[in-house]
Amino acid sequence: MSPILLNSIGKEHHDYIKQEYVKNPHLDSMEEDILYHFNLSTKTHNLPQMFGDVKFVCVGGSPNRMKSFAEFIHEQLKLPGNIADVRDICEGTDRYSMYKVGPVMSISHGMGVPSISIMLHELIKLLYHAQCSDLIIFRIGTSGGVGLPAGTVVITEKAVDSFFRPQFDQVVLGKMIVRSTELDEDVAKELLKYSTELPDVPTVIGDTMCTHDFYEGQGRLDGALCSFSTEEKFEYLKKAYDKGVRNIEMESTVFAAMCRVCNLKAAVVCVTLLNRFEGDQISTPHDVLLDYQQRPQCLVAHFIKKRLGLML
Amino acid sequence: MSPILLNSIGKEHHDYIKQEYVKNPHLDSMEEDILYHFNLSTKTHNLPQMFGDVKFVCVGGSPNRMKSFAEFIHEQLKLPGNIADVRDICEGTDRYSMYKVGPVMSISHGMGVPSISIMLHELIKLLYHAQCSDLIIFRIGTSGGVGLPAGTVVITEKAVDSFFRPQFDQVVLGKMIVRSTELDEDVAKELLKYSTELPDVPTVIGDTMCTHDFYEGQGRLDGALCSFSTEEKFEYLKKAYDKGVRNIEMESTVFAAMCRVCNLKAAVVCVTLLNRFEGDQISTPHDVLLDYQQRPQCLVAHFIKKRLGLML
Repeated sequence: MSPILLNSIGKEHHDYIKQEYVKNPHLDSMEEDILYHFNLSTKTHNLPQMFGDVKFVCVGGSPNRMKSFAEFIHEQLKLPGNIADVRDICEGTDRYSMYKVGPVMSISHGMGVPSISIMLHELIKLLYHAQCSDLIIFRIGTSGGVGLPAGTVVITEKAVDSFFRPQFDQVVLGKMIVRSTELDEDVAKELLKYSTELPDVPTVIGDTMCTHDFYEGQGRLDGALCSFSTEEKFEYLKKAYDKGVRNIEMESTVFAAMCRVCNLKAAVVCVTLLNRFEGDQISTPHDVLLDYQQRPQCLVAHFIKKRLGLML
Repeated sequence: MSPILLNSIGKEHHDYIKQEYVKNPHLDSMEEDILYHFNLSTKTHNLPQMFGDVKFVCVGGSPNRMKSFAEFIHEQLKLPGNIADVRDICEGTDRYSMYKVGPVMSISHGMGVPSISIMLHELIKLLYHAQCSDLIIFRIGTSGGVGLPAGTVVITEKAVDSFFRPQFDQVVLGKMIVRSTELDEDVAKELLKYSTELPDVPTVIGDTMCTHDFYEGQGRLDGALCSFSTEEKFEYLKKAYDKGVRNIEMESTVFAAMCRVCNLKAAVVCVTLLNRFEGDQISTPHDVLLDYQQRPQCLVAHFIKKRLGLML
């Protein structure tokens, strides 16, 4: 096989992947792509070599939690090498942390829609440059529960906004564009099925409300600003529950919307840290919170092992 | 003076401060206030003792940068003790980093409106619980320049949204509330005056546009998604320039709005890392970027020294 033919095959493969994930005709004309917030670039890093075998991407808010998850996956998949060698690929910047263990990436995204959106743009470009294929992406996070006991894992059916609409409003050049926030139904069902095989991971499927702040937007009475009554708070939460909302967090709509546009199979798996009908403050002891936070990790790790054929 | 009278004075002082900063009648009935994302609480920490003497609060996106700023202020104010002892007060969590050196706090807020808004709610409650008074708060950050050479410092006159309106739209219990984003005019003018006393800190006053994402919302052609042409991008940036916008970042509207409602004197001082009329990617060498990022720090440190009477 001549080098020309090889190049030709490579090109076709790349075009195919591009069509799958990125939706930007301008990328073709760029000599270099600097993924600024990852401190990576197509000129300084061999992205296909570094990431070409990735099949599962897991994202979550906290850098420490995503490091723990990488170590946990390393152990669960019985990968060769020392856990202590699992290092932050983005260590040259403090915007995000990124780990890769075998076919799994673990990346932090900070808090809120804008923060995860920057990360997703650069991640999706990275997966494109690395010529990845057949990916599944999970957001594993924490949330406030709506009518569920603390510690319940919620697999998101639909991500909805503060008005209970399954949509994400994206401003493009000063104009509003509406994107759908549907997630992959099959992955959600598969996750729910696997949850029954795990002890101590109470799991439900429901809608997840994504807000742009933690206090006023989620009806908390304990922010620096609060202009509503206890009754009005409960009325809003009750309305959310009646609409099918089972938990509230701050990233799911843009995550669902971007993954959908970019043809990435996506799921959102968040544990509830409290039941918002019972309070606003997170006063659960630290060790119990840590246990709760491991539940989405256990469920997604179980899913990955099943998919890799490591468990019957 | 009897203890009763002392208590009474303390109570009055606290009520006065409360009226100044927090706007939430529910806080009075709380036995404990857990500032969850700071890993601080009114029961486990003596907040008046820890923070009562704070007069200047500086916030910025990156944890590393805010650590450097704390060390820089320590040196600039010639404070006693070792710089190496300046430690992260929030080290029990990785959501935010917080430092205190003399009368100055330095806190990271991550990227985007939701991330800084959580931090501001908890910071404003902290300042209230600590019985602070006569505060000035600065956001020192990075931004994209609109028609300005890279490295220019922009003091924000008005923070505007993606539609060039000086307002912040806050959702409260599913209803939209509009807040003004005006900043303190006197502090901005004083900062501009002091900038002329510093070498290598080219500074202008202008409007700052705050967007909810870095790519499509800011008219970048290099995201994972881009549906507009180069011409449409330049048309939008030209319109922004004509409206008075000189830089674009992702936190100023909610920062201005919350500080205004809470009676905190506030200023936004951001350096431009590139001129958006010349490109989208941040390709400036690392050491030059570091130099740029120190400029808002130098200007705000100069302001603080002037206010403390440490310079004529």
